[in-house]
Amino acid sequence: MRDVAIIGTGMTKFGSLGRVTSRELVTSAALEAMEDAGVASSDIDAVYIGQLSGDIFEHQMHAAPGIPDYLGLPNVPSTRVEAACASGGLSVMHAIMAVAGGFYDTVLAAGAEKMTNLPTTHVTEALSMCADDVFEVSLGVTFPGAFAMMARAHEKEYGTTAEMRAAVAVKNHDHALLNPKAQFHKKITIEKVVNSLMIADPLTLYDCSPITDGAAAVIVVPWEDRKKYDGIAVKVRSFAQASDTMSLHDRKDLTGFTTTKIAAQKAFERAGLEPKDIDILEVHDCFTIAEIMALEDMGFYKKGEGGRAALDGETRRDGSLPVNVSGGLKAKGHPIGATGVAQIAEITNQLRGTAGRRQVPDVEIGMTQNLGGSGSTIVCHILERGD
Amino acid sequence: MRDVAIIGTGMTKFGSLGRVTSRELVTSAALEAMEDAGVASSDIDAVYIGQLSGDIFEHQMHAAPGIPDYLGLPNVPSTRVEAACASGGLSVMHAIMAVAGGFYDTVLAAGAEKMTNLPTTHVTEALSMCADDVFEVSLGVTFPGAFAMMARAHEKEYGTTAEMRAAVAVKNHDHALLNPKAQFHKKITIEKVVNSLMIADPLTLYDCSPITDGAAAVIVVPWEDRKKYDGIAVKVRSFAQASDTMSLHDRKDLTGFTTTKIAAQKAFERAGLEPKDIDILEVHDCFTIAEIMALEDMGFYKKGEGGRAALDGETRRDGSLPVNVSGGLKAKGHPIGATGVAQIAEITNQLRGTAGRRQVPDVEIGMTQNLGGSGSTIVCHILERGD
Repeated sequence: MRDVAIIGTGMTKFGSLGRVTSRELVTSAALEAMEDAGVASSDIDAVYIGQLSGDIFEHQMHAAPGIPDYLGLPNVPSTRVEAACASGGLSVMHAIMAVAGGFYDTVLAAGAEKMTNLPTTHVTEALSMCADDVFEVSLGVTFPGAFAMMARAHEKEYGTTAEMRAAVAVKNHDHALLNPKAQFHKKITIEKVVNSLMIADPLTLYDCSPITDGAAAVIVVPWEDRKKYDGIAVKVRSFAQASDTMSLHDRKDLTGFTTTKIAAQKAFERAGLEPKDIDILEVHDCFTIAEIMALEDMGFYKKGEGGRAALDGETRRDGSLPVNVSGGLKAKGHPIGATGVAQIAEITNQLRGTAGRRQVPDVEIGMTQNLGGSGSTIVCHILERGD
Repeated sequence: MRDVAIIGTGMTKFGSLGRVTSRELVTSAALEAMEDAGVASSDIDAVYIGQLSGDIFEHQMHAAPGIPDYLGLPNVPSTRVEAACASGGLSVMHAIMAVAGGFYDTVLAAGAEKMTNLPTTHVTEALSMCADDVFEVSLGVTFPGAFAMMARAHEKEYGTTAEMRAAVAVKNHDHALLNPKAQFHKKITIEKVVNSLMIADPLTLYDCSPITDGAAAVIVVPWEDRKKYDGIAVKVRSFAQASDTMSLHDRKDLTGFTTTKIAAQKAFERAGLEPKDIDILEVHDCFTIAEIMALEDMGFYKKGEGGRAALDGETRRDGSLPVNVSGGLKAKGHPIGATGVAQIAEITNQLRGTAGRRQVPDVEIGMTQNLGGSGSTIVCHILERGD
């Protein structure tokens, strides 16, 4: 198995982008990544695309061949992977596997979603199909509801407060102020979060990530080939994926995700690392409680300590463990298929020192956690600064 | 890169299966494949599922974790791949890559679709989203229309007649009589095909594959581990995938698919084989003209000779090149995500001598061709009888 490098990243503006298709968004992000990597069209051997649902949002399935089509990559194999909001992470993971396994040399991994074509209620209904339709959705569960139940369980078990959750949103909005491609550039306060519209008790509007259009892309090559291209390389130290039951009622605990624990632990084992070795993190803050649970489940904080850490500012850009410096899903935006790719792009840029105004100094090793459904899919990656 | 074996196959009945979910269908097919392989739940390291659209047909996205959930495989990574009607072939291909690359040892590759929940017109409209929505579907193109244009082009260029196309349908219906799991057990005649309801001129009802529910599964392990299990092994000699433009107007020729040519050629090269080495084939006969074009593009017949070969009976079970002995998409049925997996299951069974009443004697090497959209995705596999 070959070591693998990421040598280029690209990302469109995230937001409500109007009359544009996800295919066009991917094309923009991919061209940016190819230019950043110094890779030509003729170098690309295969394409992966993470997308939740082109059919519901854009009346377009079979997104995969559309990417090489628009990029002018004739006959290059292209595959779509889907695992709800973890589609992007799995896109990159499969590109890494394809290169590590020796099947292809230069792979474009992208992700995209064009969500704002539909009204909010339709989007919430569409996303709910990532939960268990038979046992949950038919009874009225949507994701704000599911994560509200988790927030309540976490509150009851560990005393995690609305203010602690709100601190996550405030931090990620602060971070997004430094990310020109983020959806929101708006400073908020704990009071504003706590007093905003109730969405699913106890989660308010500002506890929830927004509906977003956008695309992201990275270029993956064998580590030994990294010097062939101009792009600054980071090394893929490890990746790991885990699944869990579709329905929450089949799980023993609602205060965390077994999948996050397993995927993170495997990623650490495969990399020969521990939580203390990680300098920077992008985790899946689809709701504020999800960031708190992620940091606990990954082993960065004991269960019940994640909320306090947010409130104490430990996870801010200048804190002891910078988390979601990109703005996270909460403020950078959450175009489903793009999210996991954008997380990896952010960590890549941070480790290369190309993160611009939001650059965190002296980061050597970074990690991502990308979640699908009610944590039914989790994929983690660990990346290291290159030479 | 490790050699890979397929050691088990499973398949539900194909047809209109009533009130059942694709998750339940995959579970049945997977359990059959696991029993056939002699593999226990605890052996399975990863799952791949090919599915076109759980959201449109079943109000369920995120199919991947549902499979290990129902199978009782706790926390096993599970990934959905989608490339229109080639989703199943890509599911198996990614299982093979995962094992060959050394990422996992025992992988379940499945495919499923539950299509008959919707009326026919809705299904045709849903499937059309696999063509180019911007340039084709918005102007009224559906797949019967697209393949009708190809049939007309083939007719004009090579004189391929309605009778030649009909011979494909007659043959595949005859083959399906020997497949207890096929959707149709109905002998038809050339006259019946030619005189049946016109769907998209010149394609009639019997030129078209049906709308089908069903699932299929195979078990993939390292070749060196095949003797650990009871299942009879076949060897994966090669696989290859190619893409093409989404829109037909971007192509130079409508009488064949560049993707089929490229994928087949790569599969032959990687296996060190030629068309003459292949004893049995399953190809993607979504429409009768598609089987004719596939055999020509893969190099089994010169362009323009495929129709004659069908009419002369060369591709019948007892002919010189048995094609779609399972009944093909035309008569076995075409549950989109399951089709590519079912093709590989059929070739596996034929090479192992476990194909029952439709067993073709003395077959050593078999090949599959699985098509997505208007040939925008093609994936080919070559398999060889084991020891």
